[in-house]
Amino acid sequence: MAQAYWQCYPWLVLLCACAWSYPEPKYLGREDVRNCSTSPERLPVTAVNTTMRLAALRQQMETWNLSAYIIPDTDAHMSEYIGKPDKRREWISGFTGSAGTAVVTMGKAAVWTDSRYWTQAERQMDCNWELHKEVSISSIVAWILAEVPDGQNVGFDPFLFSVDSWKNYDQGFQDSSRHLLSVTTNLVDVAWGSERPPVPSQPIYALPKEFTGSTWQEKVSAVRSYMEHHAKTPTGVLLSALDETAWLFNLRSSDIPYNPFFYSYALLTNSSIRLFVNKSRFSLETLQYLNTNCTLPMCVQLEDYSQVRDSVKAYASGDVKILIGVSYTTYGVYEVIPKEKLVTDTYSPVMLIKAVKNSKEQALLKSSHVRDAVAVIQYLVWLEKNVPKGTVDEFSGAEYIDELRRNENFSSGPSFETISASGLNAALAHYSPTKELHRKLSSDEMYLVDSGGQYWDGTTDITRTVHWGTPTAFQKEAYTRVLMGNIDLSRLVFPAATSGRVIEAFARRALWEVGLNYGHGTGHGIGNFLCVHEWPVGFQYNNIAMAKGMFTSIEPGYYHDGEFGIRLEDVALVVEAKTKMD
Amino acid sequence: MAQAYWQCYPWLVLLCACAWSYPEPKYLGREDVRNCSTSPERLPVTAVNTTMRLAALRQQMETWNLSAYIIPDTDAHMSEYIGKPDKRREWISGFTGSAGTAVVTMGKAAVWTDSRYWTQAERQMDCNWELHKEVSISSIVAWILAEVPDGQNVGFDPFLFSVDSWKNYDQGFQDSSRHLLSVTTNLVDVAWGSERPPVPSQPIYALPKEFTGSTWQEKVSAVRSYMEHHAKTPTGVLLSALDETAWLFNLRSSDIPYNPFFYSYALLTNSSIRLFVNKSRFSLETLQYLNTNCTLPMCVQLEDYSQVRDSVKAYASGDVKILIGVSYTTYGVYEVIPKEKLVTDTYSPVMLIKAVKNSKEQALLKSSHVRDAVAVIQYLVWLEKNVPKGTVDEFSGAEYIDELRRNENFSSGPSFETISASGLNAALAHYSPTKELHRKLSSDEMYLVDSGGQYWDGTTDITRTVHWGTPTAFQKEAYTRVLMGNIDLSRLVFPAATSGRVIEAFARRALWEVGLNYGHGTGHGIGNFLCVHEWPVGFQYNNIAMAKGMFTSIEPGYYHDGEFGIRLEDVALVVEAKTKMD
Repeated sequence: MAQAYWQCYPWLVLLCACAWSYPEPKYLGREDVRNCSTSPERLPVTAVNTTMRLAALRQQMETWNLSAYIIPDTDAHMSEYIGKPDKRREWISGFTGSAGTAVVTMGKAAVWTDSRYWTQAERQMDCNWELHKEVSISSIVAWILAEVPDGQNVGFDPFLFSVDSWKNYDQGFQDSSRHLLSVTTNLVDVAWGSERPPVPSQPIYALPKEFTGSTWQEKVSAVRSYMEHHAKTPTGVLLSALDETAWLFNLRSSDIPYNPFFYSYALLTNSSIRLFVNKSRFSLETLQYLNTNCTLPMCVQLEDYSQVRDSVKAYASGDVKILIGVSYTTYGVYEVIPKEKLVTDTYSPVMLIKAVKNSKEQALLKSSHVRDAVAVIQYLVWLEKNVPKGTVDEFSGAEYIDELRRNENFSSGPSFETISASGLNAALAHYSPTKELHRKLSSDEMYLVDSGGQYWDGTTDITRTVHWGTPTAFQKEAYTRVLMGNIDLSRLVFPAATSGRVIEAFARRALWEVGLNYGHGTGHGIGNFLCVHEWPVGFQYNNIAMAKGMFTSIEPGYYHDGEFGIRLEDVALVVEAKTKMD
Repeated sequence: MAQAYWQCYPWLVLLCACAWSYPEPKYLGREDVRNCSTSPERLPVTAVNTTMRLAALRQQMETWNLSAYIIPDTDAHMSEYIGKPDKRREWISGFTGSAGTAVVTMGKAAVWTDSRYWTQAERQMDCNWELHKEVSISSIVAWILAEVPDGQNVGFDPFLFSVDSWKNYDQGFQDSSRHLLSVTTNLVDVAWGSERPPVPSQPIYALPKEFTGSTWQEKVSAVRSYMEHHAKTPTGVLLSALDETAWLFNLRSSDIPYNPFFYSYALLTNSSIRLFVNKSRFSLETLQYLNTNCTLPMCVQLEDYSQVRDSVKAYASGDVKILIGVSYTTYGVYEVIPKEKLVTDTYSPVMLIKAVKNSKEQALLKSSHVRDAVAVIQYLVWLEKNVPKGTVDEFSGAEYIDELRRNENFSSGPSFETISASGLNAALAHYSPTKELHRKLSSDEMYLVDSGGQYWDGTTDITRTVHWGTPTAFQKEAYTRVLMGNIDLSRLVFPAATSGRVIEAFARRALWEVGLNYGHGTGHGIGNFLCVHEWPVGFQYNNIAMAKGMFTSIEPGYYHDGEFGIRLEDVALVVEAKTKMD
């Protein structure tokens, strides 16, 4: 599949158009979108009344002496999927799209989102909100500069800003006299009050030993050894991505949709292990498993999730150096570490070690894929029988393949929302059918299904494109060339430590040859019952070099706007090649 | 061919080993290298006595109150090849290798160079000099910090430092209390005195119209139009690479070996053109050609070469914005432009426009290659007749192919030093034979010849590898796969604006398949009677995207250490493809 957040493919950003307007002429006269230029304003039934919500937020802003407040679409762990209590931008604006930033001033409120979501935003937002279509941080800053007078404060929750996005905002305000103010109390949460969905509190459990590649103690030792050999000799590493803590301790829960994670941080030093988490979620057995009743180097000291900032700050006051994976750590923890005590690598050692699966992890991931393939094959057989009868639609199909996966051993639900797309819908970048809105499958159209499962032993992701009738010559040509690309890259022999960026064109060459191409990335890493898009493996410019033991999806495609879409996705393992001249 | 300077392939840097020592145990007992640990020291006849030279330099350093002085291997235009008067590091140290930096303090002197040159440096330097083998700027800075006390000055000539290398030095000294001091008087030149080779003064001539693609006026208009449409609307562009001025004004001379350039700068603004050059080198006719008797926007105002810094500074005092190609501009002109008036692009508009050849330039470059091919074919036929007789060696071969080229119409000498390498010599990265040191060509060995010519219509570069006897099965396999790589990349159809970086692996795939590879770049741009390595076209990470009308060499190879080397190099033109699905 192809969606993601910070793990997001850069090409997705390119899809975002760069217009700007409000209200939009093309919407005039339409009943299903708002019209804020009539008097009285005309709102569709889908619009959310945000007047009270905004009033509550502005009251908080007044208390904190803020003239503007920035509300991004992130959580404190830069997760790809975010949980309900983190959907702050959605609650304050009514707009439920997965990408978009809101800014509220005392007099105005505005959302910035890309072209995929413009119509949706016009349907969901009331006239309290402006819609902006240029999504860069510099355009948000320009708007704030125009709305907020000199000398006033612009507030933000530092736990919702990556270091990079904070830097961009900071740079934007640098030459102005507005003050960008980090406020650790989230003001939307205060305004949201008791209506805010509760933070998950279901148990956090240890994975049975048969589903892990190493014990957490072995992993801790490996990370410590990595730090010792690091050129800048950090004394500790702060882990803030949720798959880092889940992987390191072999713990899982279900705080995040599609990902078996739990809200947490870890501070792993050369002499201690601190895990920041809601302690009440552990059973006595799990506490014992973590060795929590001591303070030795191999004891996990539990601290409350909310303590992470103070605890990191206290640790940073010593003679220490703290390594962070700067590409996914938030400003909330970054800002409490003095610069001279900070070691900023793109990825933490946990990310780098996790990327290379050991032989047991490889076997686990393979066996989850074998069971997953059974479900997919059952689905394809079922489609072949039932599509000609006209009884299957995109949504019922998606539900059925999810059900087939649930029947497999060790199943723990889908690893992302199934993309089940017939005909022209398969050419849309982010299409998923709903109960209300879907297309019937038919022998006259191509059908694309991109889906995956979470299993205790592994995470899967596979895309197949099929046709039960007679495809056109063009469809056959395009399908063949997508398949050629998949095979060419899958079979490629390349030197150790080759970067994915320089080989991904082998998945495109067959398409290029006839003037075709696809506008998305070629693949991504995948986890053992972790992320379906597991960084830093892949074919993008910021992925690390390929190494033996890495898994990556290979997923070339071709999309013909308004007609059909093809994608053929497998998960491949990087293995050592035996070559003639070795 | 594969050598270059700032246009240098990053892989060359990778070849540099990272040891560090002086004196070297492996040299002990050898007669042809120095031994500074015996008493008295033992110097080979090839060593240069630098005692007087260092004394003269140190006297200058005293006058300027400098405790250290940095002497790089560059000229003021970051040229690939540098002229005799610019060989300052060579003069002060005796070491003639093309890469290396010298630093002189009041008590010590040291050269940093990479593994290609270690033996040569031990042969050429006397015991006034330390040899350092870790060539990074940070290791040079570390040495200076150890040698120069707090509060003292480290001097350098800002015209010999690219902006980037200055930044690296500056950063290195930032947290120390040594002052990095830009001194525009070059102290080596003062010490060198009357012995310094004179700066060239032969005529600068205009290329006949039939050898140019556009008039200089058309080129000036194109650059001005580019600036007008530039997002940051610069009012002027400062041109400091020698091929920029040569190209812009269709002027040539012969100040630089292998390159028909002349020492110059140009400041092209929206309302004026200033050319900084030794005016006495122009004939009346050329002055007329340049329209030098006026100050209108299409008149070239001549100023002395030495005035560039003051003149840029004066221009920068107005309400202007000056664009520079920051990757090859020196700190000497950079430092006089206030930051807020600076537009720093990687490449100037001249570099970008020059990269795409118009139809006339394409025809010119092609016809120079056709004539050049005649010389190469004559050479190959001659080799086939004479090698079996045992009468040809690497050096006489190189001389003969150069002679054949000279016989071709519009010939203006070689475009680089001919690489003529037999047997194991072809596996060396930078091998060229000399009158004294060469190998006989024989039917038992492979022979590689990488050579090119300068012609009034174009610059050429071609490599062929041949065998007149029976190659081994391994040599055949390697040759075939190098050829496959050349063909695969040459025939590749790819989308417009594809970066060379993502397609160069097509030249390697056939080699990779059997476990072989080559350790250098895959190709570079080439000029019309300009640089043989013309940036920014090529397959490196910092090359610009491929576009219709660009020429690039395609030169995969394979090198078997101690045995043989293969390289097959053609120059290819990027053309629009007609594809099936267009």
